[in-house]
Amino acid sequence: MNLDRYRPENLRRPSNGMINIHPIQRGGILTDEARRIINEWADGYSVCDLCFEGRVDLIRNPPIEEFKRDVAEFLNMDDVRFTAGARHAKFVIMAGYAGGSVVLDSLAHYTSYIAAELNGLKVFEVPNSGYPEFKIHPEGYAETFERIKEETGSYPSLALLTHVDYRYGNVADAKEIGKVCRDYGVPLILNTAYSSGIMEIDGKGMYVDFIVGSGHKSWAATAPIGILATNFENTDKIFRKSKLRGDWSGRAFTKKEVAFFGCSPVYGLPVMTLMASFPAVVKRVKEWDKEIEKARWFVREMEKIEGVQLIGERPKAHTLMHFETPTFHMIAKRHKKRGYFLYHELKKRGIVGIHPGMTKNFKINVYGLSWEELEKVANAFKEIAEEHGVEVED
Amino acid sequence: MNLDRYRPENLRRPSNGMINIHPIQRGGILTDEARRIINEWADGYSVCDLCFEGRVDLIRNPPIEEFKRDVAEFLNMDDVRFTAGARHAKFVIMAGYAGGSVVLDSLAHYTSYIAAELNGLKVFEVPNSGYPEFKIHPEGYAETFERIKEETGSYPSLALLTHVDYRYGNVADAKEIGKVCRDYGVPLILNTAYSSGIMEIDGKGMYVDFIVGSGHKSWAATAPIGILATNFENTDKIFRKSKLRGDWSGRAFTKKEVAFFGCSPVYGLPVMTLMASFPAVVKRVKEWDKEIEKARWFVREMEKIEGVQLIGERPKAHTLMHFETPTFHMIAKRHKKRGYFLYHELKKRGIVGIHPGMTKNFKINVYGLSWEELEKVANAFKEIAEEHGVEVED
Repeated sequence: MNLDRYRPENLRRPSNGMINIHPIQRGGILTDEARRIINEWADGYSVCDLCFEGRVDLIRNPPIEEFKRDVAEFLNMDDVRFTAGARHAKFVIMAGYAGGSVVLDSLAHYTSYIAAELNGLKVFEVPNSGYPEFKIHPEGYAETFERIKEETGSYPSLALLTHVDYRYGNVADAKEIGKVCRDYGVPLILNTAYSSGIMEIDGKGMYVDFIVGSGHKSWAATAPIGILATNFENTDKIFRKSKLRGDWSGRAFTKKEVAFFGCSPVYGLPVMTLMASFPAVVKRVKEWDKEIEKARWFVREMEKIEGVQLIGERPKAHTLMHFETPTFHMIAKRHKKRGYFLYHELKKRGIVGIHPGMTKNFKINVYGLSWEELEKVANAFKEIAEEHGVEVED
Repeated sequence: MNLDRYRPENLRRPSNGMINIHPIQRGGILTDEARRIINEWADGYSVCDLCFEGRVDLIRNPPIEEFKRDVAEFLNMDDVRFTAGARHAKFVIMAGYAGGSVVLDSLAHYTSYIAAELNGLKVFEVPNSGYPEFKIHPEGYAETFERIKEETGSYPSLALLTHVDYRYGNVADAKEIGKVCRDYGVPLILNTAYSSGIMEIDGKGMYVDFIVGSGHKSWAATAPIGILATNFENTDKIFRKSKLRGDWSGRAFTKKEVAFFGCSPVYGLPVMTLMASFPAVVKRVKEWDKEIEKARWFVREMEKIEGVQLIGERPKAHTLMHFETPTFHMIAKRHKKRGYFLYHELKKRGIVGIHPGMTKNFKINVYGLSWEELEKVANAFKEIAEEHGVEVED
């Protein structure tokens, strides 16, 4: 066993000090406020020092119980729990519908499918519009509900919509889809892993029954922490408490919520950083317009490079974007580093986050970059293109 | 919404700078090595920067894939996964036996019961010997297996033993119980939340099929991270991969392990701090004898206080201990702070971790305290007793 490889000096973060445009990293970068508290709360499950009720969401010092209510208000929902990531939140909700059926948009994250599989839910997909926009239309939900009714005799138990998908960064029309689901009486989960925490979310205004969010993806928290918000009508079903009793000891755990493993495992840095970043998060969601402005500028700059084209919806309504880049792919074919040339050229310029080896198309996220950083990134792509003989418009 | 309460200056850790003897905190205090890397890896799911295989346990830089093998070797098992805490690890294993039955020792942690409940396993308990030692005897497993056979027609699907229980800190005879389970052909989970990471563990030598550990409880890691170790015979059952396929898109996720939510949510500080602390953990388990020596010294000192008595097994074989303290309870009855006096008196002396309000009996953990700190804690209890008219032997 070579333990040297785990020494601190051998565990440096390769992207340290660089501009990171990895699609999943931008919204999870800690705020200065969160960074200021991490040393104090880093030990094990530090927040359990003053736990008297046996559940992390009921702790009053630090003020987690109040925080839970503030997060509910922020999302315009009634009640909130924290989970081991959005994936765990989806598992918790679907555990309330185990053995049923669920409709997912066909751009859903794999963890939505896995949460269904783990709970024995049959999955039906809502088609997307395909190349080049890959849009999910509200009528697709109604059509899928009717198809399921025809095939199985009843409407599905549950539906899920990925508010912003991880592939194209399309922003789905949650409100219209919420209306469709409400008309059919099918409860709707809105997966906001790429929206809540960076965009304003009005849960009740969108007619959703459940909101799932990701603290480490979009709320500037350390991993793992998910947000599960719901309305009062659903709390008993989803936050169901233990009913088991020991056959010899008579022990019971009536306060523990089963699908959260009794007490959700976020007790320590995840919930503390989520809380410390919250004031900045509440503020930043109001500045989403500025992020869109930057994103659209960036798309225009990238499309000045011969052959480069945004795919997904237009105009761009999110900072996560997907480009087709056939000209970079042509360079790769004749480059001695093959597909890795782009990754290396960017790294040389202090930029990371492109999947190494990818040149045919790639995804990036420009959320929270300053104009200066954004220009640096755009110029890097243009410069790399020009150096390899690809034309770039002025 | 009062956001001021989440400002860094309002989120100080109350126990900061004090000696913390809370039963669940001692083994989770970060090592200096872990502390050195936290700033670099604190953002969101930082380790996913260089993920190419879609699963955190397959990442090579940082060396998580190698680390997984080293942890398996350390526990003398074949394969390892990291989970969102020991509770999630138990959930994962029991998901492989969903709908069956499981035998638990009657000192098991509530999360063992909850994991069974969540997977629809019927729970049967192995009795303990009751006051004052509360021991779990190996023959209790055989007797419970036979009782279940009589009641249900077959032996249970699974058994679980809590290696060191959270109430008394008793160390169960895992090897003997492992033999009983192997004789009956019942797979055994050993919950080492209070042992692996501080004590040496020889999985195969104890005939166990699964080991569950807690990074934030005993391996000096930030929460949440659990360790799930098993032998090759069980990997297919427990690490089962997704078989779902999208009905419209044809999408499949064949590398994703279902009960881990596809990829276990430890991608960031939890796995990085576990890794950075690992060399120190490998070293510290060899010094367990010294910890026991300190624990026994501490018990002797505490029992010099009139009426104070250790409960649980004797001689003490672990650093987690439970005292009956009727004399402190008598003080509380006439004290103006009632039961809270003890908590406050200790706090005044720089010591935290006793449940506020508890005086009849309480649990503490002395793991990793220096002799100097240990003396300070023992003297504090003695001084508080004497100041309130309770006799203390010289």
